[in-house]
Amino acid sequence: MLYSTILAGGSGTRLWPLSRASEPKFLHPLTGTDRSLLQATADRISPLSAAESIYVVTGTAHAAAIARQLPQVPAENILVEPSPKDSCAAISLASAVLARRDPDAIMAAFSADHLIGDQEKFLAVIGDAAAAARAGYLTTVGIRPLHAEVRFGYLKLGTSLAGAARQVAEFKEKPSRAVAVSYLESGQYLWNAGIFVFSVRTYLDELARQRPELSAGVALIADAWDSPDHAAVLADVWPGLEKISVDYGVFEGAAAAGRVATVPADMPWSDVGDFDSLGESLPTDESGNLLISGAAEIIVKDVKDAVIVSTTDRVVAVVGLHDVVVVDTADATLVCDRSRAQEVKHVVEELRNRGQDGRL
Amino acid sequence: MLYSTILAGGSGTRLWPLSRASEPKFLHPLTGTDRSLLQATADRISPLSAAESIYVVTGTAHAAAIARQLPQVPAENILVEPSPKDSCAAISLASAVLARRDPDAIMAAFSADHLIGDQEKFLAVIGDAAAAARAGYLTTVGIRPLHAEVRFGYLKLGTSLAGAARQVAEFKEKPSRAVAVSYLESGQYLWNAGIFVFSVRTYLDELARQRPELSAGVALIADAWDSPDHAAVLADVWPGLEKISVDYGVFEGAAAAGRVATVPADMPWSDVGDFDSLGESLPTDESGNLLISGAAEIIVKDVKDAVIVSTTDRVVAVVGLHDVVVVDTADATLVCDRSRAQEVKHVVEELRNRGQDGRL
Repeated sequence: MLYSTILAGGSGTRLWPLSRASEPKFLHPLTGTDRSLLQATADRISPLSAAESIYVVTGTAHAAAIARQLPQVPAENILVEPSPKDSCAAISLASAVLARRDPDAIMAAFSADHLIGDQEKFLAVIGDAAAAARAGYLTTVGIRPLHAEVRFGYLKLGTSLAGAARQVAEFKEKPSRAVAVSYLESGQYLWNAGIFVFSVRTYLDELARQRPELSAGVALIADAWDSPDHAAVLADVWPGLEKISVDYGVFEGAAAAGRVATVPADMPWSDVGDFDSLGESLPTDESGNLLISGAAEIIVKDVKDAVIVSTTDRVVAVVGLHDVVVVDTADATLVCDRSRAQEVKHVVEELRNRGQDGRL
Repeated sequence: MLYSTILAGGSGTRLWPLSRASEPKFLHPLTGTDRSLLQATADRISPLSAAESIYVVTGTAHAAAIARQLPQVPAENILVEPSPKDSCAAISLASAVLARRDPDAIMAAFSADHLIGDQEKFLAVIGDAAAAARAGYLTTVGIRPLHAEVRFGYLKLGTSLAGAARQVAEFKEKPSRAVAVSYLESGQYLWNAGIFVFSVRTYLDELARQRPELSAGVALIADAWDSPDHAAVLADVWPGLEKISVDYGVFEGAAAAGRVATVPADMPWSDVGDFDSLGESLPTDESGNLLISGAAEIIVKDVKDAVIVSTTDRVVAVVGLHDVVVVDTADATLVCDRSRAQEVKHVVEELRNRGQDGRL
């Protein structure tokens, strides 16, 4: 039996104008079906975790939308943070609340907005990771790199462990292009997929060792979570929690102590980091075009390898272009060369500079 | 004293989604200022024709909008056709109505949706054309070709006449690419700019000679125009009028009889036939971009030689593209390579095939 926690935070400015502070990417059907990324994540883990074993950690802004999109998840499993404190606080909160409900729990943490292309392989990989977790390792999933990507962190492979797992020798931050090429060529580095599997007892012990203040704060909150003091303790303690990613906050230090494993995985995986990677993650038509729309009338003429997304019922017509991104939403249109998809964040900055925060 | 008639017809499907059946291009501010093409046309001719000497011929759909945009033009000079009958009927109607108000009138006919870049030269050219018209010629303006354009009709130059005018040896239809190249290299062909200057007496005589039925029908209508019988005669006669362009209907035959002159003109002229030609006709910024918008927030990053038009208050962001057309309107967005701007008409056809006539 495995518990799964879905981390539903972050707005994804590189997916503007689709992803907004008010409607982040995990709520959108960017999956090639009418399921949102969040729903697809819940669907993906359903063979591993019964609905009552699924947790979600999110912020105040999206708790209601998440509750509606995932009606099968019990309300008491939707953990709402008063303010964003990055992934270490989120995972620690879920671990601590869960530990009080089931001290022996093995928990897997997933991002709400990733795409994984091979469900069978995914289940096998998480099964292997759960075995390593039961053996006492904080376990990650490492994706075999397909190219010299600079947007991801990397895991340096260490010695072999039981089963499919390998020790993680070191966590590596996002590399330069040249370093990413050397990683790719060496065969000794994996993409850090942001999937973590561990026994909550092991995780909380490591948290206490490395981040005693955060550990103590989360413990206070978790002790009060299923009590009448929930709101008061949360309001009192949460604002003081350290804001840090779980990679830096726990896993780097644990790897240095030999406590982190990874399961190398050859499976299609995407963090849907921008519209270019979205186009690489989903099936395209015979012209290489990815068209995602509900009510929109999309017309393409001599268009190749384009990513065209609409959330409106407007007409979107594209003629004679290739490798282009066109995103049409109620109040904004983006037109971008696919190779420049990362730079959409600069558009968001520019809008902020112009005082157009309402469009973010 | 010169009369001017503005021909305000046609919707311009190559400028979709900006130009619509319900809001044709001449009503839009595609002039680099807040004046519409129609208003810019009226402004351009104001040194030649007092407001009470300006006429407009249009259809039922746009009469009211035109009356609002040109408040200086007397209501009785706005001639409203019951149905579209092409330019021969429109020019004949204006000529016949005007002839009854001023038999000696010299009239110039202009399209409502053209751009001309050099006002001083324009006035000189029309002055020369009016002189040729007073000498008894049906006179056109011929633009010296800048490239081998296949979208325009051509005028073949004949012998020199008094002043700047030349006889027109022949009217040529839109040529093939190879023929257009030969025209350009010969130096003996001019673009037919769709500007006509003549004495209404000469024109109506030529109409009667070549198209007696159309001439008779228009005469009946004109006789009744300023009378209580206006509506009844118009409803009775107009539907039977021949539908033909003035080029084919009158000028080709008149040229064969040696009665057509042209004034060759070296001036920036555009029929704003598509978004590419719009971008060539108006001043661009230092990156070669033409940005036309009212309330829209337009953001460009590393964009060159683009034409970006918005009629909304949405955000339009374009990143890392060149020679692209982006047009954003209330219910449709067009993204198109500039070299394919002509093919926008196929998008309109496709919309019609899909039963989306409301978007046309």
